Amino acid sequence: MKSRAAIAWKAGAPLTIETIDVRGPKAGEVLVEIMATGVCHTDAYTLSGLDSEGRFPAILGHEGAGIVREVGPGVSGLKPGDHVIPLYTPECRECKTCLSQRSNLCTSIRATQGQGLMPDGTSRFFCEGEDIFHYMGCSTFSNFTVLPEIALARVRQDAPFDKICYIGCGVTTGIGAVLYTGKVWPGANVVVFGLGGIGLNVIQGARMVGADKIIGVDINPDKAAMAAKFGMTDFVNPKDVGNDKVVAAIQDLTDGGADFTFDCTGNVGVMRQALEACHRGWGTSVVIGVAPAGAEISTRPFQLVTGRTWKGTAFGGARGRTDVPRIVDWYMEGKINIDDLITHTMPLDEINTAFDLMHDGKSIRSVVTF
Amino acid sequence: MKSRAAIAWKAGAPLTIETIDVRGPKAGEVLVEIMATGVCHTDAYTLSGLDSEGRFPAILGHEGAGIVREVGPGVSGLKPGDHVIPLYTPECRECKTCLSQRSNLCTSIRATQGQGLMPDGTSRFFCEGEDIFHYMGCSTFSNFTVLPEIALARVRQDAPFDKICYIGCGVTTGIGAVLYTGKVWPGANVVVFGLGGIGLNVIQGARMVGADKIIGVDINPDKAAMAAKFGMTDFVNPKDVGNDKVVAAIQDLTDGGADFTFDCTGNVGVMRQALEACHRGWGTSVVIGVAPAGAEISTRPFQLVTGRTWKGTAFGGARGRTDVPRIVDWYMEGKINIDDLITHTMPLDEINTAFDLMHDGKSIRSVVTF
Repeated sequence: MKSRAAIAWKAGAPLTIETIDVRGPKAGEVLVEIMATGVCHTDAYTLSGLDSEGRFPAILGHEGAGIVREVGPGVSGLKPGDHVIPLYTPECRECKTCLSQRSNLCTSIRATQGQGLMPDGTSRFFCEGEDIFHYMGCSTFSNFTVLPEIALARVRQDAPFDKICYIGCGVTTGIGAVLYTGKVWPGANVVVFGLGGIGLNVIQGARMVGADKIIGVDINPDKAAMAAKFGMTDFVNPKDVGNDKVVAAIQDLTDGGADFTFDCTGNVGVMRQALEACHRGWGTSVVIGVAPAGAEISTRPFQLVTGRTWKGTAFGGARGRTDVPRIVDWYMEGKINIDDLITHTMPLDEINTAFDLMHDGKSIRSVVTF
Repeated sequence: MKSRAAIAWKAGAPLTIETIDVRGPKAGEVLVEIMATGVCHTDAYTLSGLDSEGRFPAILGHEGAGIVREVGPGVSGLKPGDHVIPLYTPECRECKTCLSQRSNLCTSIRATQGQGLMPDGTSRFFCEGEDIFHYMGCSTFSNFTVLPEIALARVRQDAPFDKICYIGCGVTTGIGAVLYTGKVWPGANVVVFGLGGIGLNVIQGARMVGADKIIGVDINPDKAAMAAKFGMTDFVNPKDVGNDKVVAAIQDLTDGGADFTFDCTGNVGVMRQALEACHRGWGTSVVIGVAPAGAEISTRPFQLVTGRTWKGTAFGGARGRTDVPRIVDWYMEGKINIDDLITHTMPLDEINTAFDLMHDGKSIRSVVTF
């Protein structure tokens, strides 16, 4: 079938809107009509060419929501008309990792997904005489896309696509880091480094689970107002207190250190501050941000020996098919706020504008609707 | 009263045996007759002068066992005749950390203990016309010593002092790291880097909780036989497989990585290997070894983001008054082996020999008896 899609022909170039051929779903696969998709920093990172695993030409996009239009042989859990959110972290419930019940990092289709291909090693996209690579197993910048059944979360039908698409990545990453990775407890003191979209979702996750102090750290004071709206109780600006005094400032605010800290910056120096701002004895720091290739985190081991824990999270530690539908419910019930995070909505033709807005720091999240 | 004691007059010099004056216990304090004490690497580290917090002259020693001889005003939980193990990590059950129930790192007397003094800011030791500093709040290289009540674990009276003294540091550090910090589960795959005394105790802790594979890593193949006796199932020698292939060798042995790894070397390069040898998704690495001053650990944050956890432990995460008596029971019940770890026993006059044996790698643990 035909589909309109934004294609990244090569690194560093704007996307072009094309009409492509989408091959129907094979066994275990599902054809999805994407209704809306967020544009995420990870898409921009791959488009920039810095992502060593990025392959071109590709259809980017991994933060979508849509409707099942056709299912391949053997698909039993989804049917045409179901509303779904694509999952770049699938949940097969059969691999060693899924069965461990200790991690969301399902490995069942990891190898082919990393190569930009479907699990059978081929692409479903075709344009201008050549195969187009899939991206993160999702390729939501196409009006129609194909995913394995295990990479789709079925969600309620009354939820608006142009809002819940954000649950496909940013919302779940931030809220999940609090709930599933950090396991923040009621009354905890929480520090969030970086008040972009992920940081705001960490903040509202911390508020949702009953954290006491929720301290935001950012060098841009303009971000404090929105963060306060999402639950931030205190703000620390490293440019005001001095970058070398950020840890001390947090210790002052938290009677010795935070119960939980979250890095949402991708800056390895900040990651160290986040660890060292944890309370001696039990503080836990969770790395969410993605660091530049080759960058390393470091600290004195004394920081660990005296009781701090250093962890990380991907997709918020959320199990896609199990947890994502629940987060959609929370949005619909008003427990979390997505509307205020989606600062721009535009049609597919204007998708390059979304990258420009992000690059200029003028958006929290842009959503493209089909 | 008078007591025989080994005094460290200055860094780098042998200890000398002296008759000192010990002032009686003040409020909340207890006079203990030390019956036996282990000689630990930490004593040697401080004696070497590398410990920036080391103060001289001091009575070293922190791994003892003895009998209560006198209690000061207000001491309600101990009486003369009680058998006790001194605790360099006390357990006041009143400070923020104790009440958190999330850490054993009681802070109630930390400041004065770090200064080599009792909680009232004075010393109980006097020799040759001057005050002698306490050490780690214990000073077990004196036949009589004074400790706060909160720094003494009461233990059963039928346990031999010259064995259970080792529970005052090494045994609890190793076994506790498995039980209280790592929380190793039955069937887990465990890797132990460094097969000295701590490593052997980690191994027997892992065996005690029902670990499956227990892999030892050491550059000295002579250590493998004893480790096997304590429960090691597989041995990796970095000199055989190549230091840069240690992680791969462990991944091969564990179907992708270990559930738990423990660094018992203090080498920051090994700490990194220990983290990276953990299984993607859920592996936890626990730092036990003490690194040289200024040394830093580092890794790519990707290691954390893909589900590994980096932690550390001090005194095995054990609560001294609560957990140490239980470990003594386990020894008496034959659940753990201490006898084979104590390779040398000597009178106080020969204590410098214990340091020599340790320095030459000829002992696992030397114990001095009074």
